[in-house]
Amino acid sequence: METRTEISSLGEFGLIKRINEGVKAVLPDTIRGIGDDAAVIDNGDEYGLLTSDMLLEGVHFDLAFFPLKHLGYKAIAINVSDIAAMNGIPRQVIVNLAISNRFSVEAVDELYEGIKIACKDFNVDLVGGDTATSRSGLMISVSVFGRVSKDKVTYRNTAKANDLLCVTGDLGGAYLGLQLLEREKQVFLANPEMQPELDGKDYVIQRQLRPEARMDVIYELAEAGVIPTAMIDVSDGLASDLLHICAQSGVGAVVVEERLPIDEQTYLAASELNIGPVTAALNGGEDYELLFTVSQTAYELIKNNPKISVIGYITDKKDEIMLHTKADSRVPITAQGWS
Amino acid sequence: METRTEISSLGEFGLIKRINEGVKAVLPDTIRGIGDDAAVIDNGDEYGLLTSDMLLEGVHFDLAFFPLKHLGYKAIAINVSDIAAMNGIPRQVIVNLAISNRFSVEAVDELYEGIKIACKDFNVDLVGGDTATSRSGLMISVSVFGRVSKDKVTYRNTAKANDLLCVTGDLGGAYLGLQLLEREKQVFLANPEMQPELDGKDYVIQRQLRPEARMDVIYELAEAGVIPTAMIDVSDGLASDLLHICAQSGVGAVVVEERLPIDEQTYLAASELNIGPVTAALNGGEDYELLFTVSQTAYELIKNNPKISVIGYITDKKDEIMLHTKADSRVPITAQGWS
Repeated sequence: METRTEISSLGEFGLIKRINEGVKAVLPDTIRGIGDDAAVIDNGDEYGLLTSDMLLEGVHFDLAFFPLKHLGYKAIAINVSDIAAMNGIPRQVIVNLAISNRFSVEAVDELYEGIKIACKDFNVDLVGGDTATSRSGLMISVSVFGRVSKDKVTYRNTAKANDLLCVTGDLGGAYLGLQLLEREKQVFLANPEMQPELDGKDYVIQRQLRPEARMDVIYELAEAGVIPTAMIDVSDGLASDLLHICAQSGVGAVVVEERLPIDEQTYLAASELNIGPVTAALNGGEDYELLFTVSQTAYELIKNNPKISVIGYITDKKDEIMLHTKADSRVPITAQGWS
Repeated sequence: METRTEISSLGEFGLIKRINEGVKAVLPDTIRGIGDDAAVIDNGDEYGLLTSDMLLEGVHFDLAFFPLKHLGYKAIAINVSDIAAMNGIPRQVIVNLAISNRFSVEAVDELYEGIKIACKDFNVDLVGGDTATSRSGLMISVSVFGRVSKDKVTYRNTAKANDLLCVTGDLGGAYLGLQLLEREKQVFLANPEMQPELDGKDYVIQRQLRPEARMDVIYELAEAGVIPTAMIDVSDGLASDLLHICAQSGVGAVVVEERLPIDEQTYLAASELNIGPVTAALNGGEDYELLFTVSQTAYELIKNNPKISVIGYITDKKDEIMLHTKADSRVPITAQGWS
């Protein structure tokens, strides 16, 4: 009898791990293959960067509350964010779209309006793509090609003990924005007459619906002469992404709770939803901020940048990732990824 | 009232045309954006090539008769074929996979076995990808990065009057293979006891299930010192793809019916299915052969290559694409694309 193993028994990370087992890059121009935010390709004078991510209806977004224009923007932004995480500059994008007949041409126009705005904002050219009608739902797969100087490329696996741990912007908002949108959807389904209660929640809603890739910080780091020692973008949540840096670099980390950047609206939403704001910041995901490490000598060069928070430091205690709490105790940080 | 235009009213080509309207590449390193088999990127000493295509269950393949291993192979091959069509060499690939829980881990393994065999055959590195569980069905989106010398890159829009029109391999087989597989599926559904009647049809079946990208011909052309004047891969059918070359180059063409390369098995299958073999060759699609033009001076360099057929020539009669029939008459060739 044939063996049948359910995908759910492995989980997404387990499935990806299994797929990647035994995959080995052999070409001399493949500098880095699987295992970072983007692949790195030797193009002579500099490196090329290649990354691709998709958004699936019913899995990554719910069109009940996700405007198509924002969805188009987000599809570009989350891929540009992967190029940023390599300390690179995005240049060309390709958009593959599978769409069912349930959508109108006007809906496609709206989606592409967001895509084109994002291309303009991030200064990338839309250079191609495949469009097909699907049997069900909407799927967007975006690929981005980028560039980075050979001496500036930043990987996940190069954090060193005593490096400072930094994060851009603030955390937890995108997750709480999603929870609020889900709640309003349920309220609306129960009673379509009800008006949505989203006053004063515009920031966290926007964090979910219109994430930005932090190219601004990449340019500012370059201007300040700072090359991070390691970097990743915060897509799965700070905890999960920090674990990637630590596992791949063979180091540990201490995150200082009171240094976590959390917006006022995130606190308010967390309180309203009865979710711990620190839990949202650590495990929320989809913030698309940059998590990076720098050597201590770089501190002077970043300390006055309001977009960057130093939230802790790297240790030589392999895989020991601790939260230093406000109560002055230390608790292990674990990933609560998708399964 | 909001206007609602059905996607079906535009058709796939119409939708793509609408999406691409107003898209303009602005970066100096974007040499060619939308409108060819791959985008062309200036990488200093040479050009980079970027292309991405997807395969959707229920649209591009039917798992009732499409083995997953072959599907994985095909997903890579059809993308490599787009790099070949630019006269380029594929280097790195990224595979995005959306898969529902209806599939087992073993099924994913089988799919990736085909992907890995294709990567080995075409000498490309698998360097990344995104995997997610979909609500329904299987979707594979593949992106390929390739390279080409600046003096060898071949576009669709550069065919010249009096150039010779050439095609690799043979035509129509993939389409007839699909018709046979569809027929056997219906027979099986009506009577599961029936044995499939596919004896002596292995070649056309293979043309459908395991298409090859013609990288072999790209290497042979380079060795012979031939740079095509224009090139495209035959994915939608000879007629449709020749129309792309002619429309974009502002030329016409004459295709000589008796020069069309059609395999013996394709003739037999066409006869059995009551489909004209020339119709299959012109409009079948999915052969993934290369259709290209060369200057007349190149004739001596290609005439002895058994993989290449000279099937006609380019004229200065813009958009006049004619079939010179065996009965010595001329009939216009029209595209019968998907709509």
